[in-house]
Amino acid sequence: MVAQVEYSTQLDTLNARHSQHAPGNQVFTYTFDSLLLQNGGQLASVTLAYETWGSLNAEADNAVLITHALTGNAHARDNERPDDPKAGWWNPLIGPGRLFDTSRYFVICSNVLGGCYGSTGPTSLNPATGHPYRMDFPVVTMRDIVRAQHALVEHFGVRELAMVAGGSIGGQQALEWAVTYPEMVQKVAVIAATAALTAQAIAFNEVQRQAIMLDPLWQGGNYEPDRGPDAGLAIARMLAMITYQSEEIMEQRFARKPAWNTTTPAPGGSPDLGKRFDVESYLYHQGNILARRFDANSYLYLSRAMDSYDVSEGYPSLDAALRRIRSKALFVGIRSDFLFPAVHVRWLAEKVRALGGDATYVELDSPHGHDAFLKEWEQMTDALDRIVSEER
Amino acid sequence: MVAQVEYSTQLDTLNARHSQHAPGNQVFTYTFDSLLLQNGGQLASVTLAYETWGSLNAEADNAVLITHALTGNAHARDNERPDDPKAGWWNPLIGPGRLFDTSRYFVICSNVLGGCYGSTGPTSLNPATGHPYRMDFPVVTMRDIVRAQHALVEHFGVRELAMVAGGSIGGQQALEWAVTYPEMVQKVAVIAATAALTAQAIAFNEVQRQAIMLDPLWQGGNYEPDRGPDAGLAIARMLAMITYQSEEIMEQRFARKPAWNTTTPAPGGSPDLGKRFDVESYLYHQGNILARRFDANSYLYLSRAMDSYDVSEGYPSLDAALRRIRSKALFVGIRSDFLFPAVHVRWLAEKVRALGGDATYVELDSPHGHDAFLKEWEQMTDALDRIVSEER
Repeated sequence: MVAQVEYSTQLDTLNARHSQHAPGNQVFTYTFDSLLLQNGGQLASVTLAYETWGSLNAEADNAVLITHALTGNAHARDNERPDDPKAGWWNPLIGPGRLFDTSRYFVICSNVLGGCYGSTGPTSLNPATGHPYRMDFPVVTMRDIVRAQHALVEHFGVRELAMVAGGSIGGQQALEWAVTYPEMVQKVAVIAATAALTAQAIAFNEVQRQAIMLDPLWQGGNYEPDRGPDAGLAIARMLAMITYQSEEIMEQRFARKPAWNTTTPAPGGSPDLGKRFDVESYLYHQGNILARRFDANSYLYLSRAMDSYDVSEGYPSLDAALRRIRSKALFVGIRSDFLFPAVHVRWLAEKVRALGGDATYVELDSPHGHDAFLKEWEQMTDALDRIVSEER
Repeated sequence: MVAQVEYSTQLDTLNARHSQHAPGNQVFTYTFDSLLLQNGGQLASVTLAYETWGSLNAEADNAVLITHALTGNAHARDNERPDDPKAGWWNPLIGPGRLFDTSRYFVICSNVLGGCYGSTGPTSLNPATGHPYRMDFPVVTMRDIVRAQHALVEHFGVRELAMVAGGSIGGQQALEWAVTYPEMVQKVAVIAATAALTAQAIAFNEVQRQAIMLDPLWQGGNYEPDRGPDAGLAIARMLAMITYQSEEIMEQRFARKPAWNTTTPAPGGSPDLGKRFDVESYLYHQGNILARRFDANSYLYLSRAMDSYDVSEGYPSLDAALRRIRSKALFVGIRSDFLFPAVHVRWLAEKVRALGGDATYVELDSPHGHDAFLKEWEQMTDALDRIVSEER
């Protein structure tokens, strides 16, 4: 699957390219030949777009893989604006002297398979036809996503990852790494993720997909990049944003405040029905932003991978799957998360421990809901530091 | 507003028409001349469709008004199938010997203003144009809905209602009755309703409206009755159904079970993306059913009335509004309800009591979420019986 490489040579090349002092941001790509898929079939050629920070050491044992959430990308840290928490999605956690200390670790983050930020996905050209895959893209799974990351990690010459860490579907990926490649993952941080989604979360995702596919511009997925179902995708995002937050934080932020800005258009340009609430303008805005930066078909595929993820798939039982974990594992739940409820995260941690694994559970005490892993920098640092700092 | 009527004559006529022994179901209508609206403007002519059970006594003091939820209608009881809990939406609670004992009470339920079951709403003819109102229908409020009901109640010659009871937006109406017409309401049961919606609930409603308006068949509301935005309305209903249930009951019912029936079409006829979950088929089915029985524009208006409801509107403060209540008041919350969280219902009850009102709070211990007031017959009977049976 991955072309054989001579590790030392490759390492020199890598470190020359990925200097820890790199002032700017650079996205690299790695392409390999084929990927067999969990549901059958294969992708003939797979490209992953990735970024790295820090340097891989001579032993190639200081690599940390960061896995991103549904609409995220490889840009977890921004070298040019390291102090802007929004410039890279985990900016405050990655860098010299930070939790993921780039003077010590070689931090890797790649855009997921199925994504639309440079990795192979529905917008990529199907080599068999010369046209974009669109809805001919295969139904990929978290395991496929992780197996593609594995190819990238092997390409770096890394035989054991110091850590895999991610939140939401990034947490699903982290868990999947620990189960699929138990000997390769020293430590794992599974944040705001569970063994499998609840029926309620699947239902929320399905409403989102239906909104996208209802948009007449979706056209069965056969839209041109600049003529996509923006309104449908924006509506999907509006709903997703509700599930990423909590009743508590929405009351704090919006309550029943009237909109101060009624110029933000509703996704489909529909008229207001009476007075607009602030929360509505906010959601329109969030929806419109996503529609400008994300591919609707990618959204369909990745949210489906989120639904279908079940760590036990392919094993005789959940216990059998979880018993494979060899990593020191940290599970982080969020008090106010209703998409991946903390009680399920805690249950998973306790299950792993009951099966003999080295698992710890920490709960973020945050009103921010699921989004807390992208907002509560201090609590995140405290929670993760206990596993990052600890010697294996 | 309401034509003056001679009460005794009218009462005789009423009881002749609304016999408590009526074997079948009959929907009546009452039309009155004009209704001034809370947001300004007026409706020139208003018709309410209603049903009644039992007989109004000579003192006209045994009338109970039942108020329905968002997509409900006047058919709270079914005389022909009194033992089918689904034949009338509160069937198990209404009838001879039941909670709302029709051998004792004259029970009235009318379809709300803005509805599509015979009452004036967006599908009605606009007398000014001779065409259906559609989106020219005014943005009505819960107060308008209640004031229209008041006209109907006065038409019956009822000067004091023995009770007003309803759940969800029926509970908003019940509360509004107690505040707007304090001298007319002996007892009130506000079930799974609060003083005003949370930002989260408004947000869920707005996503639903956006889905309807995204459907190309919506056409700005100008669709023919049999060519409406069924897919958009079905998607709205899918989301609504999630908010009416709870994570807990959805895990009990669906968890991650695969669909046993994959023939139920998705609202827009979109293809499945990988294996379908049972919860998805269920939601498609529920969505499709609603699209066949409900008007999309009505849905927009009524869900907006739900959002905009704030019992304090028009009063100097919330306290000032709630201090008007003279009724014996029962507030019923549902443990697992996240649309109208129990903690907010309890807060409202305590607020009324703190202001000197006669308020009791009861919580249904149910996993069914918001829907519990349409499912937990035994708990509902127990909860409401304490106010129904109690002498004023």
